[in-house]
Amino acid sequence: MLPLPLKYSVLMYSQLSSAIEAIQGAKTTLHQKDFLLTWEKSREDLEMILEVAALLSTMRRHNISTRVYDSGLAVSNFRDKSTRTRFSFASASNMLGLSVQDLDEEKSQIAHGETVRETAAMISFLTDFIGIRDDIYLGEGNRYMREVAASLDESHAHGVLPIRPGVINLQCDMDHPTQSLADLMHLKHQFGSLEALRGKKIVMSWAYSPSYGKPLSVPQGIIALMTRLGMDVHLAYPEGYGLIPDITEMARRQAAESGGSFAVHHDMGEAMKGAHIVYPKSWAPYHIMEKRTQWLKEGNTVALRELERECLDNNAKYVDWEYGRRHKALTNNGDALYMHCLPADISGVSCERGEVEADVFEAARLQTYMEAGYKPYVIAAMMWCYRFESPALALKKLLERNKGRLDIV
Amino acid sequence: MLPLPLKYSVLMYSQLSSAIEAIQGAKTTLHQKDFLLTWEKSREDLEMILEVAALLSTMRRHNISTRVYDSGLAVSNFRDKSTRTRFSFASASNMLGLSVQDLDEEKSQIAHGETVRETAAMISFLTDFIGIRDDIYLGEGNRYMREVAASLDESHAHGVLPIRPGVINLQCDMDHPTQSLADLMHLKHQFGSLEALRGKKIVMSWAYSPSYGKPLSVPQGIIALMTRLGMDVHLAYPEGYGLIPDITEMARRQAAESGGSFAVHHDMGEAMKGAHIVYPKSWAPYHIMEKRTQWLKEGNTVALRELERECLDNNAKYVDWEYGRRHKALTNNGDALYMHCLPADISGVSCERGEVEADVFEAARLQTYMEAGYKPYVIAAMMWCYRFESPALALKKLLERNKGRLDIV
Amino acid sequence: MLPLPLKYSVLMYSQLSSAIEAIQGAKTTLHQKDFLLTWEKSREDLEMILEVAALLSTMRRHNISTRVYDSGLAVSNFRDKSTRTRFSFASASNMLGLSVQDLDEEKSQIAHGETVRETAAMISFLTDFIGIRDDIYLGEGNRYMREVAASLDESHAHGVLPIRPGVINLQCDMDHPTQSLADLMHLKHQFGSLEALRGKKIVMSWAYSPSYGKPLSVPQGIIALMTRLGMDVHLAYPEGYGLIPDITEMARRQAAESGGSFAVHHDMGEAMKGAHIVYPKSWAPYHIMEKRTQWLKEGNTVALRELERECLDNNAKYVDWEYGRRHKALTNNGDALYMHCLPADISGVSCERGEVEADVFEAARLQTYMEAGYKPYVIAAMMWCYRFESPALALKKLLERNKGRLDIV
Repeated sequence: MLPLPLKYSVLMYSQLSSAIEAIQGAKTTLHQKDFLLTWEKSREDLEMILEVAALLSTMRRHNISTRVYDSGLAVSNFRDKSTRTRFSFASASNMLGLSVQDLDEEKSQIAHGETVRETAAMISFLTDFIGIRDDIYLGEGNRYMREVAASLDESHAHGVLPIRPGVINLQCDMDHPTQSLADLMHLKHQFGSLEALRGKKIVMSWAYSPSYGKPLSVPQGIIALMTRLGMDVHLAYPEGYGLIPDITEMARRQAAESGGSFAVHHDMGEAMKGAHIVYPKSWAPYHIMEKRTQWLKEGNTVALRELERECLDNNAKYVDWEYGRRHKALTNNGDALYMHCLPADISGVSCERGEVEADVFEAARLQTYMEAGYKPYVIAAMMWCYRFESPALALKKLLERNKGRLDIV
Repeated sequence: MLPLPLKYSVLMYSQLSSAIEAIQGAKTTLHQKDFLLTWEKSREDLEMILEVAALLSTMRRHNISTRVYDSGLAVSNFRDKSTRTRFSFASASNMLGLSVQDLDEEKSQIAHGETVRETAAMISFLTDFIGIRDDIYLGEGNRYMREVAASLDESHAHGVLPIRPGVINLQCDMDHPTQSLADLMHLKHQFGSLEALRGKKIVMSWAYSPSYGKPLSVPQGIIALMTRLGMDVHLAYPEGYGLIPDITEMARRQAAESGGSFAVHHDMGEAMKGAHIVYPKSWAPYHIMEKRTQWLKEGNTVALRELERECLDNNAKYVDWEYGRRHKALTNNGDALYMHCLPADISGVSCERGEVEADVFEAARLQTYMEAGYKPYVIAAMMWCYRFESPALALKKLLERNKGRLDIV
Repeated sequence: MLPLPLKYSVLMYSQLSSAIEAIQGAKTTLHQKDFLLTWEKSREDLEMILEVAALLSTMRRHNISTRVYDSGLAVSNFRDKSTRTRFSFASASNMLGLSVQDLDEEKSQIAHGETVRETAAMISFLTDFIGIRDDIYLGEGNRYMREVAASLDESHAHGVLPIRPGVINLQCDMDHPTQSLADLMHLKHQFGSLEALRGKKIVMSWAYSPSYGKPLSVPQGIIALMTRLGMDVHLAYPEGYGLIPDITEMARRQAAESGGSFAVHHDMGEAMKGAHIVYPKSWAPYHIMEKRTQWLKEGNTVALRELERECLDNNAKYVDWEYGRRHKALTNNGDALYMHCLPADISGVSCERGEVEADVFEAARLQTYMEAGYKPYVIAAMMWCYRFESPALALKKLLERNKGRLDIV
């Protein structure tokens, strides 16, 4: 049916020990450090996340328990709606033995003016991790996470919190690290290794959508991460749909440093030529998101409605930015790997006209599921590396413990 | 006070081993098969569910841990509100070691056109079971469950999902198997055995309610299940309040095959004569539910409001279909076992006039609680038999492990 | 920075054994008894809760697992919004190995007239504890908890429930025992012992807030508890802002019995003179809450709106009841311990004018977090003492078991 990889699980049982040994000497700086932006992490850090994620995934597939906590909480704070990231966070937490407790702002007293630092302490007395999604306000989401992190530092330093919970960015206004690393893990397994990605052309392209206000974090996360791997990263969007300028600049700089390249296009077809990988996805223009943030803060609903109408009208000029057979034909061997963070706006399926033609999506559908399937393990790996000074040693102990996830078999 | 059974727990500790041995040889086909309709299961399958449920219940009462997973998720997807089934599913999951993660459609992106099969994969990467309640749309609920199931099959076959999660019907438009099997378990314990039910008269009767749109799944589930046990099944309702015709037909056929009987009445008193068991409960007429489904799909709120008014007006003609002392007096020894899936519409308590007179309900109240109390174990048994090829062997290992649920005692 | 206590954790690892031995002989009556009001509990009971809470907290800090259940549910029933108590209950449950299942009235069928006793049974088949917050209706919250408790007794007596779940008051119209005991635990650690509190002056003072309808349970809980410890308890409020008269009377009586004192003031400054501890916090006047309860029950929204306006207008006369530098200067050494259940209405921070001046609050902020941090352990201790006939023996077994919360270290 579909050209799926021979093994989704990277490793066989017999390879576990040697794979663990292979990462034992790695010099990483993940221990007790929050995961807020991929570009704050070293290449070694990112590779470690991928390795640990693969090992945890393999162990689970072989019914080796990865539970290390017998109790403890993981708090999820979703300030925007989510299905897949919510389930990914819940899965990762559960896998390590933590119970998820949602901080639901409608249920809580946050709406009553409670300050961030107070809430950060109140939810953390017996908490090991806090996952936050906050991608609505430009300039706010990542800042909010750092405010939470600083509050945790303060409370921990003064003995209010016995343990400093780790903070994990589940999508902010700047980056979506659990997504981009799951994407990279997918690429690694599709192409065989990170080295094999060197020189490959990836096109992160804007695509048409009838909806409005989609965050910038996915395209930003992709160009910020893939330019570090020596890839030829191409960013395509209609004039006026730019990303946060600083991040685009950083991508350009990183591409130069890594021996890859970075280019911007304003023509989807042009961009797709010879691509090995394509990632067509809608987003709202940076300058619109800036205005939107302003109107949201000021509570200016009239201006917001006007902005939405204006933005949708503008989008409508670019309905031909729909990734389809004619684009695919232009890619490498007419068969570039199609990626998407899901859900995609599929023409004729989830909307009249959208980001991708139905049969092009259908041909790649199960691969996009697979892409999504790495996320729980990426999150679990972030937690693992936060908690254990030597992630390898802790994994080795799991192997030695040899306990079944399903105890009775 | 009330004539409750001597032991709610069927078995004493000393009987556990022999009860397990007794089911060791049973030929069932529950392993790796979803539980969507009782009539897709063999008599042996259903008996096994009841036996495993009784064993799990007994073990728990004796503080024997029934936890077999050290981690893993059970997803609950309630597309209609629920207290008791929600708690039953949570209890069953917890008992086996799984954490419940709700798929709350308001919180998720499902409202944004995400397709069923995509969501099915996204929530299942580390999931062992999915429980679904979807009883609002006639012709849709069970169909939706099968669509989820087919998606899981596809994703599992292609390696997207390491494990194929089991799907459990927590109430659909056709059947409510966790309810009807809990009801049967109650009957088995009240009458001593399934064999003792042969020839007993059970009346599944419509009853008046001031509310509108109650699902058909309970009466349908009851007539579809009880006609397989050689019982004399009587279905009573006012003209025009029929169930899905195919299911009524099936009940008739099954009654003939099992050596029981099946009859339809349009007079509550007439139906009750000599009954050993009565189950008076309101439901919306099949043809109304069909129209309702159509208007709901078309979003025709005017027609829906009109239909509701019409239906309530019609209901009002049958306020005398209220199970009361005069009906009870007609039953066997004037003391038929009263059943209800709860909550009942109790006259003078939860509404002015309803399904049952207050003192008749009060006399049976604790027995209805007991009836409800079997549901968590029925669900746990469904999970157990899905997961273990030999449910008996796995139960035996629990006994041998001999771990306390409360570890420190 | 701040004069925080040297150790938040009361005990060192080496002290655990002797601390457990010290409570081994205590005569308490907590076993299998709900925790609904502190004044129903003996002095020995309350001391036991504090000791067990301190031991559980210390163990957790030393990575000693406090998990005693391998499965089981703890139901939380919040009939009013909450962040910190919700997280405290979740933390306590998780610490002992129980999974929290929320009884969310919007999701459930309770809105459909289901009776209390039925719901109590339906949520309890596999449940060990039920935590309830119900503080909106005066005369109702505590009554509701007792109704739940009576239903559980009935269902357990008749074999419907295998285990009688314990009920814990997470705030009602009368008392807030998990808060007042966390407050007392904080005082104990700040002053060195309960004995050291004898003769100390504590001022429970009304404070201005721009909000309306705050419950009476905190001030009532404080005066009802602290008057039992030989403290000089001063209650201050503007004329007309009295508490439930019976509780004020009880406080007066208890103060006399314990060798302390109880006084009422209508001048904040006057009350603060020489205070060792101050607790400035807003509440709605008793007679307003009585009316509000009446209008709420009658669904009289016009009267409710009028009452709110009237009440806020009245509050506005007392904006000078804002605890500030001038008040603090009057306290003992100008440095009374500031307490608050959080969130506080902080002038210039969470509102224009509120309960406390910003810099006064800031100086005490981390101490209020610490105060809050005792609550999860107080709740866990209530559960512990409900379940174990000898709390000390069970704690000793934890020590002997010597299992890590983080298994792999």
